[in-house]
Amino acid sequence: MYRSHSCGELRPSDTNKEVTLSGWVQKTRDKGFMIWVDLRDRYGITQLMFDEERTSAKVIEKAKTLGREFVIQVKGTVIERESKNANIPTGDIEVLVSELTILNESIVPPFTIEDQTDGGEDIRMKYRYLDIRRNPVKNNLMFRHQVGMKIRNYLSQEGFIEVETPYLIKSTPEGARDFVVPSRMNEGQFYALPQSPQTFKQLLMVGGMDKYFQIVKCFRDEDLRADRQPEFTQIDCEMAFVEQEDILNIFEGLTRNLLSEIKGVEIGNFPRMTYDEAMRTYGNDKPDIRFDMKFGELNEVAQHKDFKVFNDAELVVGIAVPSGASYTRKEIDKLIDWVKRPQVGALGMVYAKCNNDGTYKSSVDKFYDQDDLAKWAEVTGAKPGDLICVLSGQSHKVRAQLSALRMELAERLGLRNPEEFAPLWVVDFPLLEWDEDTERYHAMHHPFTSPKPEDIALLDTNPGDVRANAYDLVLNGNEIGGGSIRIHDKETQALMFDHLGFTPEEAKAQFGFLMDAFQYGAPPHGGIAFGFDRLVAILGGQETIRDFIAFPKNNNGRDVMIDAPSNIDTEQLKELNIQLDL
Amino acid sequence: MYRSHSCGELRPSDTNKEVTLSGWVQKTRDKGFMIWVDLRDRYGITQLMFDEERTSAKVIEKAKTLGREFVIQVKGTVIERESKNANIPTGDIEVLVSELTILNESIVPPFTIEDQTDGGEDIRMKYRYLDIRRNPVKNNLMFRHQVGMKIRNYLSQEGFIEVETPYLIKSTPEGARDFVVPSRMNEGQFYALPQSPQTFKQLLMVGGMDKYFQIVKCFRDEDLRADRQPEFTQIDCEMAFVEQEDILNIFEGLTRNLLSEIKGVEIGNFPRMTYDEAMRTYGNDKPDIRFDMKFGELNEVAQHKDFKVFNDAELVVGIAVPSGASYTRKEIDKLIDWVKRPQVGALGMVYAKCNNDGTYKSSVDKFYDQDDLAKWAEVTGAKPGDLICVLSGQSHKVRAQLSALRMELAERLGLRNPEEFAPLWVVDFPLLEWDEDTERYHAMHHPFTSPKPEDIALLDTNPGDVRANAYDLVLNGNEIGGGSIRIHDKETQALMFDHLGFTPEEAKAQFGFLMDAFQYGAPPHGGIAFGFDRLVAILGGQETIRDFIAFPKNNNGRDVMIDAPSNIDTEQLKELNIQLDL
Repeated sequence: MYRSHSCGELRPSDTNKEVTLSGWVQKTRDKGFMIWVDLRDRYGITQLMFDEERTSAKVIEKAKTLGREFVIQVKGTVIERESKNANIPTGDIEVLVSELTILNESIVPPFTIEDQTDGGEDIRMKYRYLDIRRNPVKNNLMFRHQVGMKIRNYLSQEGFIEVETPYLIKSTPEGARDFVVPSRMNEGQFYALPQSPQTFKQLLMVGGMDKYFQIVKCFRDEDLRADRQPEFTQIDCEMAFVEQEDILNIFEGLTRNLLSEIKGVEIGNFPRMTYDEAMRTYGNDKPDIRFDMKFGELNEVAQHKDFKVFNDAELVVGIAVPSGASYTRKEIDKLIDWVKRPQVGALGMVYAKCNNDGTYKSSVDKFYDQDDLAKWAEVTGAKPGDLICVLSGQSHKVRAQLSALRMELAERLGLRNPEEFAPLWVVDFPLLEWDEDTERYHAMHHPFTSPKPEDIALLDTNPGDVRANAYDLVLNGNEIGGGSIRIHDKETQALMFDHLGFTPEEAKAQFGFLMDAFQYGAPPHGGIAFGFDRLVAILGGQETIRDFIAFPKNNNGRDVMIDAPSNIDTEQLKELNIQLDL
Repeated sequence: MYRSHSCGELRPSDTNKEVTLSGWVQKTRDKGFMIWVDLRDRYGITQLMFDEERTSAKVIEKAKTLGREFVIQVKGTVIERESKNANIPTGDIEVLVSELTILNESIVPPFTIEDQTDGGEDIRMKYRYLDIRRNPVKNNLMFRHQVGMKIRNYLSQEGFIEVETPYLIKSTPEGARDFVVPSRMNEGQFYALPQSPQTFKQLLMVGGMDKYFQIVKCFRDEDLRADRQPEFTQIDCEMAFVEQEDILNIFEGLTRNLLSEIKGVEIGNFPRMTYDEAMRTYGNDKPDIRFDMKFGELNEVAQHKDFKVFNDAELVVGIAVPSGASYTRKEIDKLIDWVKRPQVGALGMVYAKCNNDGTYKSSVDKFYDQDDLAKWAEVTGAKPGDLICVLSGQSHKVRAQLSALRMELAERLGLRNPEEFAPLWVVDFPLLEWDEDTERYHAMHHPFTSPKPEDIALLDTNPGDVRANAYDLVLNGNEIGGGSIRIHDKETQALMFDHLGFTPEEAKAQFGFLMDAFQYGAPPHGGIAFGFDRLVAILGGQETIRDFIAFPKNNNGRDVMIDAPSNIDTEQLKELNIQLDL
């Protein structure tokens, strides 16, 4: 038996007990006649004490050889500490060691195993197994487990069945790129790894499974942006005989339950907003509503003067920055530089300070008088002391730019409190979106999303205006879940494929099994999928998903710890009937 | 709202309630003035009634168009049935329908959606989404979910953390063939899909995670034998600071808990048997101990006469078949044919009937007298009325043959009761096994399994005799779990790689990250992995794992429903820097 107790367990009530502990040497202090060792395991740290007067010379000698991260086992007696440490739960006691076994030695780790480490991201990823020893990473992984268990138990109690869908499936050209897997037994053919279990969960609904969920890995071979992973985990859900309202209620319940049980935050009914309203009010389909700074559209109150920039613009829109009137000229110039960065892309920014005395001072005073600026303040909700920032241009571009500015300012103003949670349903997403590259409409969600019945007639005339029965759950400015009511009849599905540019032959080749299935009594159904990595990160009060994944990949899709991907044998390639083509 | 109740819910206490139900038409009976429809959903069947006198003509007319598997919604009143059906929970009531909506029609399904279907395996797999509507398949999937939840909650309560390990990892030539995934971003390189998360769970132990589990898909590109799947699910577990005894106790507890809570079967301490004993007593390292028929080794009592077949044999071994003395000559001949089938491979079989009067009649009476045969009966434990079946030859071959016969006879004798559960730990597996093809030793378990310290010296002289700290959990003649105490120091691991024929360079290229990790204070650790598909099937009282997998693949690794694997675009291949080589 390697241990009688963990290193986080002993208390003054255990005084005089004979105990056995195992763990890692966190640090040692050698005072000559006395040696203290902090022993660490998953559960905490316990101080060990070696005392020349009470510990055998042989044990003392061995203790002097201990280095950081050695793995040891000790036997000893729990005693009360002379100088207590209120910072750790075991801080009132220490263990007077009588026996010491070195279970394994350690060379010097490449970074310190401390909450605040000296190791940079790259080195920590290469030695991720050491990084995991650190509390911040270890706690994140344990937190992830806890959230996963809560979700599974909640959904299971609501009657959902977790069904495992296959990983070796069929490649489809729609959507992102698939990772593919050559089949040795089926020469020249390939499996694909699922981008999501979408079609399988719909087939489970056709199969009568009614309430399905799965916490499941999904795969996308995309050029990785920051904080995207080629493999990621999804909470995938689907229900039959439901309308949008039923789905929103169930998953609002799940989210409310998580916030309550895990964060102790009680939230009532989640607000709802249409996609159009979200875009108009926040310039964004996943607005962070922990703070205000709503968009004020200024066309009516800013296009009546000789200011050509505004007059030529499709949209003039501003936000009020709380207490921003105190910004210096230099600070405002830096803000203007910020919105002009290529990542944001504004051509410039107009501003107006709302002075505390009720007067205004703007960068366009030669065009606009105090009455004009008072109207800007009214529309943007600016109060004395605030700064109005105004951008103008093409609607969809300027909304994105002002949204970026809004988020940046909120960050700087400390308005994005990670311990505050503001969920929001965004509903009535467009069915289709125009893709500049391919010059055709793509499904905004996916090709199985149902159009609103009253909008179907628009498919032929104004495809971009057709709304879908599609919804996103947004939390603190992040889309944490998205879903839709699906098409469940063959005719509407064929109509959709047609509008997405599939020939009937292509549709049959790719999704024939789904179209076939729809002939045998498919029930009305719909669902939702949550990004589990993101959800856990946000609940954990952080924004980087990588910190909540045990073994993440870097931005080139590499696992630098195991050095994958890697070359494989020519023989292996031959068996798979493929060759390299570099 | 599509339904107020499910189709399994209504009882006489609901009489006179107005209800809304949705589901599939199981069957209709049209008596002209009255129509009955069995409406089915996941939860059960409710009888609907359309009565000319009480239902509108329009609704009656629509009801007459209903075909099997149409999806409908009805509103109506719960009434007591005149002729009750005691076979279903809703059998005392029916719903008098006032409104009927056809939600979706169905063409005639290719097989009947009944517990006993007319559909063969192939057609049911092609239309698996219809097969899942049938109770036997649906119940298996729900049972699987239930078992999964129990396991997760049990392990979580025991302090285990579920950690998701990556699916896109590194290919290793050891063990079975990997499925590989070409990397687009890392030209000419490949990921591999994990055959198990073995190295990652060991790295989690190095990382201090202490108690890990994961229910996870694993992949093996093997030529598929019956009832093997290229992707399968594993309950993967690992613990640090443990000895073999700790692991056996924890997972014996898990299995006992499952048997108790899911099957209502209470089992005390699981018996244990060494690998050697299992091979000698049952000819098999996963013996079914629900029944006896233990092997009796007959060399001493059968090699003293002139029967050359036995005298030349390394091993002469028999079993007693209960009540087998009554077999006719024809039946015994068929048994001899059975053991001579190429799948079993015996050259012949000697038998001796133990007559009820205490005399013996054998197929080798000209060599052996009554005293000889009495000794055979003693060694095999045969009683009057039994049949002794004896095989001879090379030990390892003849054991396998007699084991096959033992299982076959037990099956015929009805001794393999699927509702009886007999778990068994088999311990002390050999570390290495000789591979005829490559003419070298392979790791019997995997290269990370630790040898028993007292046997290490044998590595150089008698590698085949070295025992490992390895164990299997056997249930009803199936290996449901297997594991080992791992090597946790770099030196022993290097020694193992050396004995497995790895050069230091090869070992470094394949497992360098693990060897590196072992330098930084790896704790003693070990673990176990259960085959989840198999475990669920056995708990479900069945032996075919395919019946417990939602969307299984056939013996060619194909998903015949979605028709995968399939061809992919040349452009896609080009992006991946590979080309076909057929």
